[in-house]
Amino acid sequence: MNIKITGTGCYIPSEIEMNSGFDQHEFLDANGVRLDPPNQVIIDKFKAITGIAERRYAKEHLNTSDLAFYAAEKAIQDAGIDSETLDYIIVAHNFGDVRYGSIQGDTIPCLAARVKHALKIKNPKCVAYDLLFGCPGWVEGLIQAQAFIKAGMAKKCLVVGAETLSRVIDKHDRDSMIFSDGAGATIVETSAKNEGILACESASYTQDEVYYLYYGNSYNKDLCRNTRYIKMNGRKIYEFACIHVPQAMKDCLDKSGVAIENVKKIFIHQANEKMDEAIIKRFFRLYKTPVPEDIMPMNIQKMGNSSVATIPTLLDMVKKGEIERQSINKGDVIIFASVGAGMNINAVVYKC
Amino acid sequence: MNIKITGTGCYIPSEIEMNSGFDQHEFLDANGVRLDPPNQVIIDKFKAITGIAERRYAKEHLNTSDLAFYAAEKAIQDAGIDSETLDYIIVAHNFGDVRYGSIQGDTIPCLAARVKHALKIKNPKCVAYDLLFGCPGWVEGLIQAQAFIKAGMAKKCLVVGAETLSRVIDKHDRDSMIFSDGAGATIVETSAKNEGILACESASYTQDEVYYLYYGNSYNKDLCRNTRYIKMNGRKIYEFACIHVPQAMKDCLDKSGVAIENVKKIFIHQANEKMDEAIIKRFFRLYKTPVPEDIMPMNIQKMGNSSVATIPTLLDMVKKGEIERQSINKGDVIIFASVGAGMNINAVVYKC
Repeated sequence: MNIKITGTGCYIPSEIEMNSGFDQHEFLDANGVRLDPPNQVIIDKFKAITGIAERRYAKEHLNTSDLAFYAAEKAIQDAGIDSETLDYIIVAHNFGDVRYGSIQGDTIPCLAARVKHALKIKNPKCVAYDLLFGCPGWVEGLIQAQAFIKAGMAKKCLVVGAETLSRVIDKHDRDSMIFSDGAGATIVETSAKNEGILACESASYTQDEVYYLYYGNSYNKDLCRNTRYIKMNGRKIYEFACIHVPQAMKDCLDKSGVAIENVKKIFIHQANEKMDEAIIKRFFRLYKTPVPEDIMPMNIQKMGNSSVATIPTLLDMVKKGEIERQSINKGDVIIFASVGAGMNINAVVYKC
Repeated sequence: MNIKITGTGCYIPSEIEMNSGFDQHEFLDANGVRLDPPNQVIIDKFKAITGIAERRYAKEHLNTSDLAFYAAEKAIQDAGIDSETLDYIIVAHNFGDVRYGSIQGDTIPCLAARVKHALKIKNPKCVAYDLLFGCPGWVEGLIQAQAFIKAGMAKKCLVVGAETLSRVIDKHDRDSMIFSDGAGATIVETSAKNEGILACESASYTQDEVYYLYYGNSYNKDLCRNTRYIKMNGRKIYEFACIHVPQAMKDCLDKSGVAIENVKKIFIHQANEKMDEAIIKRFFRLYKTPVPEDIMPMNIQKMGNSSVATIPTLLDMVKKGEIERQSINKGDVIIFASVGAGMNINAVVYKC
């Protein structure tokens, strides 16, 4: 049985936060000491490594589940399905609805229930749940949808990745410049043809790696010790990702039986431009093959890292011709790959 | 293919909070007005309806993922499996790790990753994720484990339900007396015999019902408006559950092909004694059959409502002969059924 993405949609928040918006931030190190270089130098270095020039923040009145709803609405429309025929609504996120100005994430009810409510779906047999799996949550949702369909428990699933990281960043941490808000959604259905998901791989590295991404205090020691923010050990994550993501992608591609030459595009979690490039380089090196031009569509320059939302957003934009020099065509084999908190990794080889 | 629970374990927090512990609470109504009756009258009425005389709270230094780990360790031991052979760790919860004295839930990394870390499992192919589905989360985890096994993606899964509701209650709300802390865990594996899960049902009612359980402000208007607590519309939930849970159980039992006379026990989410009794009564009325004696094991009197943890905890206790006049034997057909935030409902018909 083949499982295919039949519709995509994304919601790109309207508020553009340029790198210049961080000019006046007081960047501290982990010990609370002001960083030496002037902010402009810090920002320039940040841009050179991550590729991020601007990022999107949700308007104050919108929460993660609102973004998820907007993206879901578009994916349903794109697939041309009746939303009442959905068997599952899977919403991947990591913090719940964190209202602007609040520090609590709200997950009662779960975000998928809110999305279903907003979509006005009546059918009670459409099961709505949330999936927490770090940044690879959307890819993992796709893999779970596949399981439900293969097990005969579903025919049509809505898989959404949505996040408002702008609500959980420590403004005194230069890593705060990475994070962004967004939502991407997909409709997943069975297909009678030889297409869709060809293979998948998931892994959780939780020994030494479990707290590479964590919820921690502000670098500003004067701020409340009970308030926590998204924090990361960037160097460790970089090293980890460069070793394990290429191998997971290779395991997945080999399982699919597709030759490396036939891979047309790789949609990788938009975490950091240099890291993503290093992953791709190592992946092709495993096959002793040069990296093909334009193999990796990117939108991180303007979108930042919106966690679970990056891949479905990028997929939707490429499908709609919104990324320069990037397109996918019927029959193309593409790879989705992601890495994030857990540390979790996953990959899917997919035939369009 | 049959899917069976091969091991169970639970963690019962050591701190006993008696009803008398609420004697001095200032109970308010939703408008912030002090409730008229003396606390003793409120507490007596509460006990008469819910059956709850005492509940368990986790020690201050323990969080939800710690409780989950302790329960998981026991389930693994009970099943006699090598933890390195687990393909999935599914942790159902609703608030993340809410440290004592803090109001933020921590889900970075997800709790399943923390449990895997604590279990010292090395195998990266053991995928660890969190599932948010309200109180029916553990039953839904069981259903998801079944999907992974049926789809050929897993052979052994650890499914945990864990919660520390004591960290998210509004002390000015008499409903705070309902909530409790706990964790229950199960190992799920394939079985060659005609046993295990016979049928399952899940549903999400999100139209009028989506905010029957929600995260809201304290009834004490002087407390911070940005801090929220678990809140419920008890009357609406009661009415909803009495209509929809018996029907879901009937749909599930009919799907399984098992006759009502052959149902030996019903493990229902321990939300409220009177509500659970009303559900059972209506369920048997759908079959025009009297309610058999001792059909419904209960531990709510001493354990309170620990959300996702109630059913796996109760199952473990009955299996181990820890509930008076209750036991299950090989070949017995039992039903798991749950209802909670979303509003979600599910049921599983299971042959021991």
